Amino acid sequence: MTETTEPLDRVMVIGAHPDDPEFGCAGTVIKWARAGRSITYVLLTSGDKGSRDPGLRPGQLAAMREDEQRAAAEEIGVEQVIFLGYPDGLLENTLDLRRRLCGLLRQHQPHIVMTIDPWRTYQLHPDHRAAGQAALDAIYAAREWYIFPEQLIGDVEPWGVKEAYLFWTGNADYWEDITCCIEARIAALMCHTSQVGENNERLAERIRERSRKTGEEAREKLEEEGYEYAEGFKRFQFR
Amino acid sequence: MTETTEPLDRVMVIGAHPDDPEFGCAGTVIKWARAGRSITYVLLTSGDKGSRDPGLRPGQLAAMREDEQRAAAEEIGVEQVIFLGYPDGLLENTLDLRRRLCGLLRQHQPHIVMTIDPWRTYQLHPDHRAAGQAALDAIYAAREWYIFPEQLIGDVEPWGVKEAYLFWTGNADYWEDITCCIEARIAALMCHTSQVGENNERLAERIRERSRKTGEEAREKLEEEGYEYAEGFKRFQFR
Amino acid sequence: MTETTEPLDRVMVIGAHPDDPEFGCAGTVIKWARAGRSITYVLLTSGDKGSRDPGLRPGQLAAMREDEQRAAAEEIGVEQVIFLGYPDGLLENTLDLRRRLCGLLRQHQPHIVMTIDPWRTYQLHPDHRAAGQAALDAIYAAREWYIFPEQLIGDVEPWGVKEAYLFWTGNADYWEDITCCIEARIAALMCHTSQVGENNERLAERIRERSRKTGEEAREKLEEEGYEYAEGFKRFQFR
Amino acid sequence: MTETTEPLDRVMVIGAHPDDPEFGCAGTVIKWARAGRSITYVLLTSGDKGSRDPGLRPGQLAAMREDEQRAAAEEIGVEQVIFLGYPDGLLENTLDLRRRLCGLLRQHQPHIVMTIDPWRTYQLHPDHRAAGQAALDAIYAAREWYIFPEQLIGDVEPWGVKEAYLFWTGNADYWEDITCCIEARIAALMCHTSQVGENNERLAERIRERSRKTGEEAREKLEEEGYEYAEGFKRFQFR
Amino acid sequence: MTETTEPLDRVMVIGAHPDDPEFGCAGTVIKWARAGRSITYVLLTSGDKGSRDPGLRPGQLAAMREDEQRAAAEEIGVEQVIFLGYPDGLLENTLDLRRRLCGLLRQHQPHIVMTIDPWRTYQLHPDHRAAGQAALDAIYAAREWYIFPEQLIGDVEPWGVKEAYLFWTGNADYWEDITCCIEARIAALMCHTSQVGENNERLAERIRERSRKTGEEAREKLEEEGYEYAEGFKRFQFR
Amino acid sequence: MTETTEPLDRVMVIGAHPDDPEFGCAGTVIKWARAGRSITYVLLTSGDKGSRDPGLRPGQLAAMREDEQRAAAEEIGVEQVIFLGYPDGLLENTLDLRRRLCGLLRQHQPHIVMTIDPWRTYQLHPDHRAAGQAALDAIYAAREWYIFPEQLIGDVEPWGVKEAYLFWTGNADYWEDITCCIEARIAALMCHTSQVGENNERLAERIRERSRKTGEEAREKLEEEGYEYAEGFKRFQFR
Repeated sequence: MTETTEPLDRVMVIGAHPDDPEFGCAGTVIKWARAGRSITYVLLTSGDKGSRDPGLRPGQLAAMREDEQRAAAEEIGVEQVIFLGYPDGLLENTLDLRRRLCGLLRQHQPHIVMTIDPWRTYQLHPDHRAAGQAALDAIYAAREWYIFPEQLIGDVEPWGVKEAYLFWTGNADYWEDITCCIEARIAALMCHTSQVGENNERLAERIRERSRKTGEEAREKLEEEGYEYAEGFKRFQFR
Repeated sequence: MTETTEPLDRVMVIGAHPDDPEFGCAGTVIKWARAGRSITYVLLTSGDKGSRDPGLRPGQLAAMREDEQRAAAEEIGVEQVIFLGYPDGLLENTLDLRRRLCGLLRQHQPHIVMTIDPWRTYQLHPDHRAAGQAALDAIYAAREWYIFPEQLIGDVEPWGVKEAYLFWTGNADYWEDITCCIEARIAALMCHTSQVGENNERLAERIRERSRKTGEEAREKLEEEGYEYAEGFKRFQFR
Repeated sequence: MTETTEPLDRVMVIGAHPDDPEFGCAGTVIKWARAGRSITYVLLTSGDKGSRDPGLRPGQLAAMREDEQRAAAEEIGVEQVIFLGYPDGLLENTLDLRRRLCGLLRQHQPHIVMTIDPWRTYQLHPDHRAAGQAALDAIYAAREWYIFPEQLIGDVEPWGVKEAYLFWTGNADYWEDITCCIEARIAALMCHTSQVGENNERLAERIRERSRKTGEEAREKLEEEGYEYAEGFKRFQFR
Repeated sequence: MTETTEPLDRVMVIGAHPDDPEFGCAGTVIKWARAGRSITYVLLTSGDKGSRDPGLRPGQLAAMREDEQRAAAEEIGVEQVIFLGYPDGLLENTLDLRRRLCGLLRQHQPHIVMTIDPWRTYQLHPDHRAAGQAALDAIYAAREWYIFPEQLIGDVEPWGVKEAYLFWTGNADYWEDITCCIEARIAALMCHTSQVGENNERLAERIRERSRKTGEEAREKLEEEGYEYAEGFKRFQFR
Repeated sequence: MTETTEPLDRVMVIGAHPDDPEFGCAGTVIKWARAGRSITYVLLTSGDKGSRDPGLRPGQLAAMREDEQRAAAEEIGVEQVIFLGYPDGLLENTLDLRRRLCGLLRQHQPHIVMTIDPWRTYQLHPDHRAAGQAALDAIYAAREWYIFPEQLIGDVEPWGVKEAYLFWTGNADYWEDITCCIEARIAALMCHTSQVGENNERLAERIRERSRKTGEEAREKLEEEGYEYAEGFKRFQFR
Repeated sequence: MTETTEPLDRVMVIGAHPDDPEFGCAGTVIKWARAGRSITYVLLTSGDKGSRDPGLRPGQLAAMREDEQRAAAEEIGVEQVIFLGYPDGLLENTLDLRRRLCGLLRQHQPHIVMTIDPWRTYQLHPDHRAAGQAALDAIYAAREWYIFPEQLIGDVEPWGVKEAYLFWTGNADYWEDITCCIEARIAALMCHTSQVGENNERLAERIRERSRKTGEEAREKLEEEGYEYAEGFKRFQFR
């Protein structure tokens, strides 16, 4: 448990592609946004490879997916969506990417970062591993005065993220009850039409099913009531 | 289970060194070859560092090991052996290597890829981690129109591998009964004389022993009969 | 001579550090700004290493130098100053940097790019070589539909820079008469107090001297009058 | 169990920062040093980023931390401390780092290497992952005649490390009873004043507590007596 | 002058894109082919970015350009055309590329290599710099027993290229009289329809013009007759 | 001209291979050593690839060449020879190499650095380009407080090299009269028996010839007498 009484009200979600937040943690995001937290999305790529239609150029697809992501974000109550423009499918956890993310952390000063669990066994998508690892390594770097010191300009200082929540994890130890917003979560996901199609009720049901199962897991682990629908995370609380 | 009824009859085995397939999955390969599947071996290196004799230059050793690998392949019924010529001991999962493998997948169109499990905890050989990870990342890339798009020449199109089998895994969830071909598997391994010596009955017994143990595991997990000797894999079935 | 009659009125100056434009090409920039051209500065670093005072942290110095650069830019009539935040002294011409610059070219659509000549023999500053080369390579990339295609979002299209002017060159083939604005050029340079000190009349005289010499060279080569003070460039005109 | 009867009396501890050995494995080191083993420390960085005081430059901090590390080493009975001078916080497992470590292994010929477990799930410190992985990959390389063959000069030959002990692991399978030297271990850690402060009795108690808990685990797993305080390792014994 | 009397009859032309040989050195190639030399083309990319039509995917363009290159090669009398499949526009002179080229040199054993002069001042195309430099560095590597030693398999031995001819150079010191084959050279170039269009008489005239000018230069420097049309090269003769 | 009156008495020669100093600048080194200057050699590699005998392993050759270099150094009066152990033939000007060299400059504080001219047109040896460029870039870095700041430990401070002399240059602007020591220079070169053979009088004459020619050039440019034998350098004097 953190010792601070400061409210942890700024949240940054770092994903590899548009729709990663909606597939991974949108229920929790909606709930937190409703509770007054300020949410920023950072997407490393604009998902420019995610189509089976060769007639759709990467930039055209990226345009569609940025629009879809902005629509989903608005639906959810996200304040800002930042696209870094890296090429989809080719992400690597380089010092360069880490520096970019570190700079964003120092400027936006999120108390909480949500990202993909890069340690998940058989996380087959190379972008998902790279994005999660780079985000966590950037959190580490952001705290130090002399890592990427050229970023500490004016009132920009080292920034200590207080909590990290990893989604798509095999080691959840924190659960959020999203019963209140399961349908809003699904609606947000449905904004990504290029990826999920129109009126994808089958996907909606799959999300409900999975959230129900996670809810069970939460009730069992936490020995609490409620949690009809839940999302699970591996959580880190930093000193 | 895949929904396709198309037979999955082209198989590509991607290993780091000659003898990786024989140490890792040869029983299954023999069985599948006998069943009519067409097998292609891709070896990233020619194993040029695997000798304690300083008088044997890397290229001389590579020549011997390529010969041994071809002999083993012939014994097993492998149709084609491809050596990529990377230097043994120094493999890295670069975008460059991934592009090479992606190109091979698109040209050969294997339904099934067998490779090393890079997530295995304490997989100490850096080449084994790099080879397995590059192979899996290449499978991901091969499906997309705009990753390495310069490869989609003529009738070469994106290619979706249907199944991946990871050997040297700590998380087997698929077992193949190799009782029929345990001795053929050992004979194939024995072709790698530079690595195993002549008439290495002790190694043969070790292989039998391990396969027997895997067989037990298979019988237990699958609640099936047979499987006196087995090989275990982590399997992925892709949509 | 370009065949287009379209006015070349958007100019991007790409330098490695704050003060590079003022040391390299500010007279021309002032003249062009006065003539109605719109000027954008892109500085790859914020010059965070350029101090002999160990008590000044890189970020503190970067803050001062960004302020100085903005002051100089305002004095000159530059519309926009963009800092990319790379670390001073460690620039490399990577594909990553090239992609960043390519993206800026496509968004800002400058007709003219001014940058450092990376081929200058004995250009000893590694950042100067890297910045100039990356800028020129980005110009090349920006023209193509399928280099960094993920950037071609919405109305962003490939962009063909029309002319490039290299400063700090040993092969000038274009001269601009800056007699009109030699003092304004010096005043702009003097904004970089952290680098040149206060009232550095000696430097001012050095600039006048060098510009006079370049003026002579221009008169000789061009067989023209005027050019009391001039700046020289290696110029490229692209189809 | 190794088949050799040669005493394994040379030990190399490879860490990312000064204090890594004292936090990770110092009890065992003290015990082994007392038993006559010769210990060498290799620290990849000098911990130059580990301060929250922006007025302390990286080199100044590095100087302090090297002194602290030497003091701790002397207290413990370490014979030699080698600092490689890589920048803290930015370590990567490159072939270059691996070559450096491989060269040290071949020159010093340690029978035993102790390093950080890079596979530990949620090992959040990027330097810890890189250091442990590079050390293990260097052990692999050091054995071969034609990996980094330029190092095999004069009487330097390939070197086969016999055992590796990984600390900060989640998979301990070897425990050392450090009851004899728990207080010496704490005293050594206390030498790192810049990191732990003066008279940090709370940390001391935390170390005792953790060692006690590891002792319990050891007694349980080994079904042995003793082990009031213990340290746990993942151990590898190489042929 | 080389001391060997061995005929230098195997020639390898290494270019970055299809059409590089035809733009750069085809007259000489035709003449040498007619004289009985055996010519191999190696193209690092298939020129997949060279189109202003966004509807033409990189692979489609690559297919066209490979066909065009093969047609030109046949017209010229080239025996073999090898495409390495690197992505157009993104070439870098990495050790990996150098190893690939070194392997080809050792297998094909060309006496003569023709490639792009990477030192040409203001060679603005990054691929041209990278291709030429990699080719020359590969020539250096190919001679040594222990650079990329894993390639020296079977009867593959180190290979000493005897002569290198750099085209697109600013420092020609060797000229070939191509009066005999100026029209064949133009015809070969015209095979690259996707790049030069149909019946591009203006380009043909430009080639004639330039070759005439080079012819003058040759006559002057060599004080020889003939050379109505010529191509100029920077030539290296290796011991 | 430098404004300091401090004698420039510490000299560091940075070469890629043993014998580079003797081939490149040994006459000057001998003269300076005799005049009381203290000379340090830094060799990035130990020349492990420089043999046509495949039976000589890289490390064996490196051992011989280090011995030869030490013998030559002793003959010349060099105080210290440092071998960095990079692999011959594969040098690249990475930040890592630059950091190593920067650290050496800061520790040894040479007033003068002699190295290879990396800008020489058609410097075909990749190691020679990389070594010279890395050395010059390291000189730049060594002056700054916050480039590689982790090196500024204890009394190690930024170090400003005062003069750089580039050998193997096409732009000599400084000549040293080595008439006094032409034979000593040749004797030193002859220490590199593995490279030049025994009693290589032909090479000796070649050195004399070249030095004579450089002497002529010096007399002409400097309008001075003497300089029967000379060495030429591109010289930089830093503020």
